[in-house]
Amino acid sequence: MNFEVKQIGVIRTPFKSNDKIPIQASKSDITGEAEVFPDYSEGLDSLDGFSHVILLYWFHKSQSPKLMVTPFLDTKKRGLFSTRAPSRPNPIGFSIVKIMQIKGNSVKFKGADMLDDTPLLDIKPFVPEFDNRFDAISGWLTDSLHAKNDDYLGDNRFLS
Amino acid sequence: MNFEVKQIGVIRTPFKSNDKIPIQASKSDITGEAEVFPDYSEGLDSLDGFSHVILLYWFHKSQSPKLMVTPFLDTKKRGLFSTRAPSRPNPIGFSIVKIMQIKGNSVKFKGADMLDDTPLLDIKPFVPEFDNRFDAISGWLTDSLHAKNDDYLGDNRFLS
Repeated sequence: MNFEVKQIGVIRTPFKSNDKIPIQASKSDITGEAEVFPDYSEGLDSLDGFSHVILLYWFHKSQSPKLMVTPFLDTKKRGLFSTRAPSRPNPIGFSIVKIMQIKGNSVKFKGADMLDDTPLLDIKPFVPEFDNRFDAISGWLTDSLHAKNDDYLGDNRFLS
Repeated sequence: MNFEVKQIGVIRTPFKSNDKIPIQASKSDITGEAEVFPDYSEGLDSLDGFSHVILLYWFHKSQSPKLMVTPFLDTKKRGLFSTRAPSRPNPIGFSIVKIMQIKGNSVKFKGADMLDDTPLLDIKPFVPEFDNRFDAISGWLTDSLHAKNDDYLGDNRFLS
């Protein structure tokens, strides 16, 4: 079965191409702006007070998905669903970003890791009581993360 | 602009109606099963080793969204984007669940907080280095969460 999603706004970032995009919001100090279209402004009410939001968006530059991919942080082929590659059957990305300012229909944030002009699909509040998992383990990524340390800038074709 | 998402599988849980669904995966010990359609099985490779996955799915029983809602955990009207209400412009839910077993095209998990037969859209690995935010603050939810403690079962129409 198929469903239709609609663009509810746009995410503006300094990134015009995949070069040098931080591979994850948690590794990015870059600011961006999530603008909802004016019809949706009212929905931003009460968002102040939260420190972080979850942005859901459409990877508009993603390519045809492959079920096995070689991730940016690895040299072995891995199942797509064990990676954060943007080219997926449903190219929906999510980033947890830090709210800097909410004004009118716009949320300025820190943690940009997506292309400029990315279509916005949803904004949800990040709720630490719901969304943190202190006991989580990273699987194949563990070694790669330690090897790469914070040297995380680069082509993010394979990690959203 | 609109985009099409496709169902890639189904999530099976014991919940046939909204009654008694835990309001969040983090508050649920209930097991469920995320099955990808056989064509996508290969994409589950390398997921073993991760402790948690992020399930993206379609709130197939959601209603027309309203931009201001009275959340389950509150008595005041709040902007939709400051809540986890399932009735949204794009009714996409996400749950972080604990992997119990991966077998064939199925991931058995703990943390079910969605209806039986929920259409699955994506599986992503939960990566603590990317996805935890230890410094996050919950805004209007803070007081409600403390008041309600762990007594979290109930009608989840307003919190996914």
